[in-house]
Amino acid sequence: MQGIIPPLITPLLDQDTLDTEGMERLVQHVLAGGVHGLFILGTTGEGPSLSYRLRRELIELVCRQVDRRVPVVVGITDTAFVESVDLSRHASDHGAAAVVAATPYYFPAGQPELIEYFTHLSKQVALPLVLYNMPGCTKLTLTHQTVVRLMDLPGVVGLKDSSGDMAEFHRLLEMTKAREGFDLLIGSEQLLAESVLFGAAGGVCGGANLEPRLYVELYEAARASDLTRVRQLHARVMALGRAVYEVGSHGSSIIKGLKSALACRGVCSDFMAEPFHRFREPQRAQLEQRLRQLDDESIAESEVRA
Amino acid sequence: MQGIIPPLITPLLDQDTLDTEGMERLVQHVLAGGVHGLFILGTTGEGPSLSYRLRRELIELVCRQVDRRVPVVVGITDTAFVESVDLSRHASDHGAAAVVAATPYYFPAGQPELIEYFTHLSKQVALPLVLYNMPGCTKLTLTHQTVVRLMDLPGVVGLKDSSGDMAEFHRLLEMTKAREGFDLLIGSEQLLAESVLFGAAGGVCGGANLEPRLYVELYEAARASDLTRVRQLHARVMALGRAVYEVGSHGSSIIKGLKSALACRGVCSDFMAEPFHRFREPQRAQLEQRLRQLDDESIAESEVRA
Amino acid sequence: MQGIIPPLITPLLDQDTLDTEGMERLVQHVLAGGVHGLFILGTTGEGPSLSYRLRRELIELVCRQVDRRVPVVVGITDTAFVESVDLSRHASDHGAAAVVAATPYYFPAGQPELIEYFTHLSKQVALPLVLYNMPGCTKLTLTHQTVVRLMDLPGVVGLKDSSGDMAEFHRLLEMTKAREGFDLLIGSEQLLAESVLFGAAGGVCGGANLEPRLYVELYEAARASDLTRVRQLHARVMALGRAVYEVGSHGSSIIKGLKSALACRGVCSDFMAEPFHRFREPQRAQLEQRLRQLDDESIAESEVRA
Amino acid sequence: MQGIIPPLITPLLDQDTLDTEGMERLVQHVLAGGVHGLFILGTTGEGPSLSYRLRRELIELVCRQVDRRVPVVVGITDTAFVESVDLSRHASDHGAAAVVAATPYYFPAGQPELIEYFTHLSKQVALPLVLYNMPGCTKLTLTHQTVVRLMDLPGVVGLKDSSGDMAEFHRLLEMTKAREGFDLLIGSEQLLAESVLFGAAGGVCGGANLEPRLYVELYEAARASDLTRVRQLHARVMALGRAVYEVGSHGSSIIKGLKSALACRGVCSDFMAEPFHRFREPQRAQLEQRLRQLDDESIAESEVRA
Repeated sequence: MQGIIPPLITPLLDQDTLDTEGMERLVQHVLAGGVHGLFILGTTGEGPSLSYRLRRELIELVCRQVDRRVPVVVGITDTAFVESVDLSRHASDHGAAAVVAATPYYFPAGQPELIEYFTHLSKQVALPLVLYNMPGCTKLTLTHQTVVRLMDLPGVVGLKDSSGDMAEFHRLLEMTKAREGFDLLIGSEQLLAESVLFGAAGGVCGGANLEPRLYVELYEAARASDLTRVRQLHARVMALGRAVYEVGSHGSSIIKGLKSALACRGVCSDFMAEPFHRFREPQRAQLEQRLRQLDDESIAESEVRA
Repeated sequence: MQGIIPPLITPLLDQDTLDTEGMERLVQHVLAGGVHGLFILGTTGEGPSLSYRLRRELIELVCRQVDRRVPVVVGITDTAFVESVDLSRHASDHGAAAVVAATPYYFPAGQPELIEYFTHLSKQVALPLVLYNMPGCTKLTLTHQTVVRLMDLPGVVGLKDSSGDMAEFHRLLEMTKAREGFDLLIGSEQLLAESVLFGAAGGVCGGANLEPRLYVELYEAARASDLTRVRQLHARVMALGRAVYEVGSHGSSIIKGLKSALACRGVCSDFMAEPFHRFREPQRAQLEQRLRQLDDESIAESEVRA
Repeated sequence: MQGIIPPLITPLLDQDTLDTEGMERLVQHVLAGGVHGLFILGTTGEGPSLSYRLRRELIELVCRQVDRRVPVVVGITDTAFVESVDLSRHASDHGAAAVVAATPYYFPAGQPELIEYFTHLSKQVALPLVLYNMPGCTKLTLTHQTVVRLMDLPGVVGLKDSSGDMAEFHRLLEMTKAREGFDLLIGSEQLLAESVLFGAAGGVCGGANLEPRLYVELYEAARASDLTRVRQLHARVMALGRAVYEVGSHGSSIIKGLKSALACRGVCSDFMAEPFHRFREPQRAQLEQRLRQLDDESIAESEVRA
Repeated sequence: MQGIIPPLITPLLDQDTLDTEGMERLVQHVLAGGVHGLFILGTTGEGPSLSYRLRRELIELVCRQVDRRVPVVVGITDTAFVESVDLSRHASDHGAAAVVAATPYYFPAGQPELIEYFTHLSKQVALPLVLYNMPGCTKLTLTHQTVVRLMDLPGVVGLKDSSGDMAEFHRLLEMTKAREGFDLLIGSEQLLAESVLFGAAGGVCGGANLEPRLYVELYEAARASDLTRVRQLHARVMALGRAVYEVGSHGSSIIKGLKSALACRGVCSDFMAEPFHRFREPQRAQLEQRLRQLDDESIAESEVRA
């Protein structure tokens, strides 16, 4: 679990039909960008909104296409323990490398209950388990005190933190740096640069669906402690976020923006699973224009560098 | 959708095995208490924590046993639209009377997105649809403005409100009283008395798993505007809550308390689905003692009345 | 502490000048409506937004005008303990009957810290102390467990609950009914009817600034267990709320609506203290129209009754 | 507004008496550590919990002692606009360099209301105004969209961000970097390193009360892009936080920890204003031990380096 592992969006033709050609183009696109792994069925992948049948189909499709060139990591976050375990078996059977699980997200559970939950889950899943802190969606936080309790469980290999709480991430970095085989991945791409500069193993960056190479280069620059280059690439990550994530007004704007941008670039369909719906006009036109502007800036920049 | 419709707990033998005998005893127990309907796979029923296989088995079991003596209402709340629709078909096939759906609960959706979601859902579910406001678990509120937009959709027959926000419930009562065929049910049993006094159609009261007749009598007293009796029975509902729901310290204490109390009384198993676990000692002993005290008070009261 | 005690708005000419004539007309208006007490410098009175000089001036003005015909209750909620105590002395010196204090509201304090705070405060304030639960503004809740710890402190005479959590209010009613000299007042006027039906001592209803007699009559009907009349008057309270509180979109709409309505009726100025500002057009016109409609309905109703 | 500007704790002898000798020792201590300014009456300084008399006394004391060697910045955050303006005049009269204001924190105001508020405040305060984003205490966030609207107001010279939301801070850094004379200061000391590396003007770090030189050195290393040294000093900042801020269980632990640590080292009294109280045993002993361990590590480290 090192480097840039994009949380792939899930291209759909309708509520329960995968856009398989779009998915294949997307996988090819990010692999061409040099990413170090793939994460499917996460938040960006609308995992919890998809039928189990479709989730299984997607696991098979991606594992077959990737064919172990990079690790495939599969989201199994669920409110039903039994379904999470089943999905982990399916992932294992088709060659995935690890599974990722956030807390169950219907009932508000206490930290001791979460410790029990992950202890039991880690015993039953069929693959190495990455913990996932995603309070924005689960409304439960894995505190650093809880992570310390969980990180020594057999089979637990890391934590993906999408809390956006960088002070807490620093606490986790301090607490886990002596723990071999437990990696910290940052979920917020705006925090990728500093996370890697201060010791994170990598990032699960949504924007890498769109511009995989940018995030790979930023990761490498940070690993190399090349601050000048880090600042330059970080500025570009911020610009991409402004262009793609801030159209529309609800929390769903990030995934909508990514899907819309990928559709603009001809990669795949922008259909979304309920409760969301793709951007319609005028948001779609807005996004297209911002994307064009972003490309122009990028070309201008390359020319300056060349 | 009138009267007392208990949200049944789901008796389990283990993570994925129904306690069918316990379930049958429970159904018999609440029917004997005179309830007007049954609600399965709700929050109290740990619906979102159960495998789909088990949810289907439970629907079949309860519908068969009840055999249309009272309406069976089935919770289909899910983050995956396709699974909600599928479950509604299964419920319809086996003779359920209606389905209940809260908002999807992983992504934080905006009110316009929720309006679209329920509009689409109401077209695809196979049975009359009861909306369900449950912000404590879904972290999304159905505002009264949104309910007004949804209440005229074909197939939408009511709202169960478990927000605990009684001022908002009064707004809903005012707004829907002229709307034939749209019923309001209150989810908090502490608010049953006043809800029915001011026009609600009934209540979905967890405590009715344990003492169904108490809630039925309170409902009837409120319908009859018998304030003296309402106050007396309401006091007993409060006492039951103090005895059963306030052992333990997490949000899960209500369901744990109910299951534990039903096990004490020999009705069914108290096994809980992840992420929760049944009360162990000393909570179990505490609950047993409180329950005994509650029974003693009840006997004393009956004797006074006799 | 019994009956209807309106939380008076504070009429202002500018940021630091009292509209003394408006204030006098307002006091006369609510006294004429038969209210049982007056509450100044509460949330509706914009207490925390006013300079200490103005708060003192207001205390003097109102106490002098009321001249002990009904009890005057003074809000001393503050983040600075010393200022709260000082204000209580000023209130005592001018003949106020009691003070009301919510939790300090800058730092997020724990329940044990709040218990210490109120213990110390109750020893130092110069008048009987009413606790005030107002989580919507203070973001701290006085739990029923905490209230039980506080209700036996010397000098503590009651609790005003504006949490809107009616289930918790029922718990408080149960727990305090045997405690002589400790009264529960409800803050949400939509909950006045049921609160008094189930044992509350009265209500601190913002709408009573506008229509004092309506709330007094509802209180009396509830005390007399006259359900038919309670339902009729409660419906009118709901109608007033729809007319006056739902113009505008921020949390400040209730106070803005009240001040604007009082200005429409010629009682006093609608100037507001920072961070708020009076309604401008088109909200002002909207409110005027709704208010006219409300009056028309009221006249029609009276004619029917006559 | 550049560099390290410690938010000074306020040493107290009792609820309304300044520990003037302790305060003087504290000021001397941090000035000796090379800090670039002083911030009094902020959150760490318990500003909102102090009487206005004491706030004025403190302003006079510190301004006199500092005698313009470094800028003194004064917190004027208040729910009463008039009191904020008055305090700014007092600060100006005694030679302070700027004032800092968070949003008013009783009423939940909307962003347009906050824009009006700061627009009016900036016109009336007597000194340059630093905006302060402190949602943990005010429960209101200054969004980056709002900051953009405010940053061009005459007299507004910067923003102190204590939200802990580093992604949003990066957005602010991008948006304000072209704006001369508007500085961004970070409030969370765990985020000081990366904030300065990516362009922040400095930090308002509570820990600098205790170890001013550590923070000054970290700031300078980050300005010089000396990553090796930054990592080393950042690790020490994290260690200090673990030692001092994590004793006790409430949100107040940071200020309690700082005051207790300063008392252990003989700098000043650890008395706290309501609603808080100094650490008693066993927390006090715990903190003392952790502090000793921190000192030992520090000595060991220095010896290795020497």
